Amino acid sequence: MSSAPVTDSLGRLIDALQCLPGVGRKTAQRISYHLLERNRDGAGRLAESLREAIERIDNCQCCRGFSETPVCRLCDDPSRDDSLLCVVESPVDIQIIEEIGYRGRYFVLMGRLSPLDGIGPEELGIELLSARVAGGTIQEVILATNPTVEGEATANFIHELLKKRQVRATRLAQGIPIGGELEYLDGNTLACAFNSRRVL
Amino acid sequence: MSSAPVTDSLGRLIDALQCLPGVGRKTAQRISYHLLERNRDGAGRLAESLREAIERIDNCQCCRGFSETPVCRLCDDPSRDDSLLCVVESPVDIQIIEEIGYRGRYFVLMGRLSPLDGIGPEELGIELLSARVAGGTIQEVILATNPTVEGEATANFIHELLKKRQVRATRLAQGIPIGGELEYLDGNTLACAFNSRRVL
Repeated sequence: MSSAPVTDSLGRLIDALQCLPGVGRKTAQRISYHLLERNRDGAGRLAESLREAIERIDNCQCCRGFSETPVCRLCDDPSRDDSLLCVVESPVDIQIIEEIGYRGRYFVLMGRLSPLDGIGPEELGIELLSARVAGGTIQEVILATNPTVEGEATANFIHELLKKRQVRATRLAQGIPIGGELEYLDGNTLACAFNSRRVL
Repeated sequence: MSSAPVTDSLGRLIDALQCLPGVGRKTAQRISYHLLERNRDGAGRLAESLREAIERIDNCQCCRGFSETPVCRLCDDPSRDDSLLCVVESPVDIQIIEEIGYRGRYFVLMGRLSPLDGIGPEELGIELLSARVAGGTIQEVILATNPTVEGEATANFIHELLKKRQVRATRLAQGIPIGGELEYLDGNTLACAFNSRRVL
C-alpha cells in the first residue's frame, strides 16, 4: 500500500528525481526529504545549474564533445598535438582521458554501432570523422571505444575506413589492470593478457 | 591527477549534484554526463520541480510537517482521529506511517534532542506540542521517534512532560522484524525481543 506524498510539488519532485541513473521511487523520496529538510540552498543551486547546463551545453562542431561555444576548449587549443586523434564513444571519456595527460585531439561518436537500436555510421558522425582524417594532419587515430562487443565492432568499422588513407589506427592495450589480482580476473581478460604477453 | 571539466557550466553542475545524499565527485560526474547525453528533458523537469518544491513547501503551522498551505492536508482533514497524536522526528516518517493506514494526527519534531549539536526542546517545538496536548482532545501520544540513543532520549523527555497531563504516552513495539531470521539479528534487538516475549 502506498499513500500519495503530503504535497503535490513534493510528489512532482519525487517523480522528477527518478531521471537520475539508478534512482528509483524509494531513493527519490529519501533524496527529496533530505534536500527539503537539510539542504534547500543546495537544491536551489542544483536547480540553477541543471537549467544552466542544459541551456548552454551543446555539442562541439569539431569533435562532437560537450561545449558552450561552437568549437570546444580542447579543439580550440593551439598547443595540442594535431597529429593524434582519439576516437571515443561518449563525452565522459574525454574527461577520463584528459586526466591521464593525453594532449592530442578528440572525436566523439556519441554512441557505438548498434543496428538493432537504429544507430549506424550516420548517427556516429562517421562522415565528419572521415573529413577530419582526410584533412591530412592526423597521423594516428587512437580507437578508444569501449572493449565491448559493440565497441569492438565500431572500432573495426572505423579501422576499415582508415585503411584507405595514410593513417595509423591503434587500439588501447588490453590485459590485467594495474593492482589487479589474477584470482579475481575474468577468463576473457586473462586469456587476452596471456596472448599479448611481452618479452622482458 | 584531475583535470577541469570541459565546460564551466558542466563543472558547476558536477559541484551542485554533490548536494545529493551519498553522491561524491565521481557519481556527480557520471550523473551529469548521463543527463546531458541522454535525458535533457528529465533534467529540465528536475530543475523545475526542485525550484517549485523549495519555493512552495514550508512547515505546517500545526504539525510542523511539510505543507504548501499554512496548515497541511493531514491536519486539515476533519475525518482523522483527533484523540491520537503521533510524534515523529522527520516529515519523511509521516509518509511511511501513512502507508500503514494510521488515521490519527501528527507532530513533527524536525530532529531529536542533541545538546552537542545545539538541538534542545526549543528547536523541536516542544512548546507547540505541549500546547496541543493541553488542548484536551488528545488521549494518546504515540512517541514514534527512532529507536536510537537520541531518539529514546527524546521520547523519554516528552514522556516526562506528558506525565503531568491526563494523556497516555506509548512507544512503538521493538522486536524481531516480520520475516527476519534470528541468525542475522543483532544482539540488542534479540535481547529486547526476549524481554518483551508474550504469552500465547
